[in-house]
Amino acid sequence: MSRTIVAAAAQMGPIARSDTRKAVVERLIALLGEAASRGAELVVFPELTLTTFFPRWHMTDPNEIDAFYEAEMPGPETLPLFEAAKRLKIGFYLGYAELAVENGVKHHYNTAILVDRDGAVVGKYRKIHLPGWDKPQPDMAAQHLEKYYFEPGNLGFNVFETMGTRIGMAICNDRRWPETYRVMALKGSEMILVGYNTPDDHTGNFDFDSLTQFHNQLSIQAGAYQNSNWVVATAKAGHEEGSNLIGQSMIVAPSGQIVAMATSTADEVIVAKCDLDMAALYRKTIFDFARHREPDQYRLIVETKGPVLD
Amino acid sequence: MSRTIVAAAAQMGPIARSDTRKAVVERLIALLGEAASRGAELVVFPELTLTTFFPRWHMTDPNEIDAFYEAEMPGPETLPLFEAAKRLKIGFYLGYAELAVENGVKHHYNTAILVDRDGAVVGKYRKIHLPGWDKPQPDMAAQHLEKYYFEPGNLGFNVFETMGTRIGMAICNDRRWPETYRVMALKGSEMILVGYNTPDDHTGNFDFDSLTQFHNQLSIQAGAYQNSNWVVATAKAGHEEGSNLIGQSMIVAPSGQIVAMATSTADEVIVAKCDLDMAALYRKTIFDFARHREPDQYRLIVETKGPVLD
Repeated sequence: MSRTIVAAAAQMGPIARSDTRKAVVERLIALLGEAASRGAELVVFPELTLTTFFPRWHMTDPNEIDAFYEAEMPGPETLPLFEAAKRLKIGFYLGYAELAVENGVKHHYNTAILVDRDGAVVGKYRKIHLPGWDKPQPDMAAQHLEKYYFEPGNLGFNVFETMGTRIGMAICNDRRWPETYRVMALKGSEMILVGYNTPDDHTGNFDFDSLTQFHNQLSIQAGAYQNSNWVVATAKAGHEEGSNLIGQSMIVAPSGQIVAMATSTADEVIVAKCDLDMAALYRKTIFDFARHREPDQYRLIVETKGPVLD
Repeated sequence: MSRTIVAAAAQMGPIARSDTRKAVVERLIALLGEAASRGAELVVFPELTLTTFFPRWHMTDPNEIDAFYEAEMPGPETLPLFEAAKRLKIGFYLGYAELAVENGVKHHYNTAILVDRDGAVVGKYRKIHLPGWDKPQPDMAAQHLEKYYFEPGNLGFNVFETMGTRIGMAICNDRRWPETYRVMALKGSEMILVGYNTPDDHTGNFDFDSLTQFHNQLSIQAGAYQNSNWVVATAKAGHEEGSNLIGQSMIVAPSGQIVAMATSTADEVIVAKCDLDMAALYRKTIFDFARHREPDQYRLIVETKGPVLD
């Protein structure tokens, strides 16, 4: 008997800076209800799901900044989402800005948690590949300040055994880096969950920007195929505070085939039944890592950060 | 002024077991001539270009086996190709089975060489990711015995500064492994050359085999995009000794876009003018390795061959 999980990507349309957490959580609960009605057992929400994508602005007042972060999860405003999911017996992935106090010091992370069907937080991931800059770029029309607002994740790429499968998590830009998928696949993942906010008007170079949707598909499909994993990837999409965020939330099979894709840039649920044993077709043949990988030849991947012209 | 190179993929149709080296080299020279007439400065031939794809058979007689290998390059039968290329001022990549004597011991490699426009061999690569098996598989309809006929390459993934650019080489199955491109990109490659022989009737599992062409495109496009490299990939194609080899020879830009593709499974030349500075668009932004890679988080990639369920 094959092992299956019905997964959903719950794409969100834009969130205005003036939208309250309460209003956002109501939208999340509505999406959860639709996913449940379509048989979903696991729902993936976007990156930084609870507010607008604030790294597009340069703020300097710590109080203004910290208002975009969650100091507890669940907190009073997010608890209704956890309660609804527990009642519906649905697990979920939720991306949010995390304010953490570690050894008495405040830290800021771009975080996702994994919640099981009983409402327990069973996994946490903090974004490792932060794109953009650590200070404003005066010569760029659009700012992208993730390196200013967040520290790189300090929890590694991990895999969580839950809901009958082994789940890895990544966030947005992580999905473009093949190392992301590979580390989790080597830890035995069968399914990788990704939330993202991806503008298609970002660099101001049209040759580049006009390929944003193609690059989104290419990265996710290659990651799925080359690692024999299901990937569920969910966008925050649409015209948000002057920026165009792509949609294309998708569920991709271990074959690299897109089995479901959102067609709007608004709140939208897509659902697919994922056969977890499908990965074996690739892992036992062309991607049998134990027979075919040659790690001695890969050392430069960890020995250097930037290029070495040897 | 932008730096450009006009590159060609010289796809070959099938080679029968009974075909002579002389007949094959005549075909190669004809392809070279067509490429030259279309302005090519660099031509990429397939993997194991000089004979039929012999790893589909299980042979045991060492003399019968060694007849498929080249003990010198150029040898008397391949010298006319080198002379023609030198006359036309075209560089080329050529894949062949290499019989090497190292420290008095015979070794067998699946090899490619890079020859510059003056006819000098300026680079050699020996295939690292050997697919298939080291002994016949009685329960499989089609045999794939590369691990029986070849040792894994012992030269690493290298980059050769020649013809105004920095060129890396890979062979066939290497193109499915993201580590292949990454190591060469970290060594500063701008262009990666790949020859392949890829059957689409290999596993006997139709769900898998029917996606062979899609997987070929996906792997090459992702490797190009995620590493900001041009990729020129050339097939030996067509119905060869009972096996169907896919075509789809292609030239892919650092954007991941396919800029040229073969439409046949026969001898066919495709040509594209490659702007080598195009890679900078990605390497200075989203794939600025020195700013964005996080090698400490990638250690498992080199610390294990097969999966570790931690």
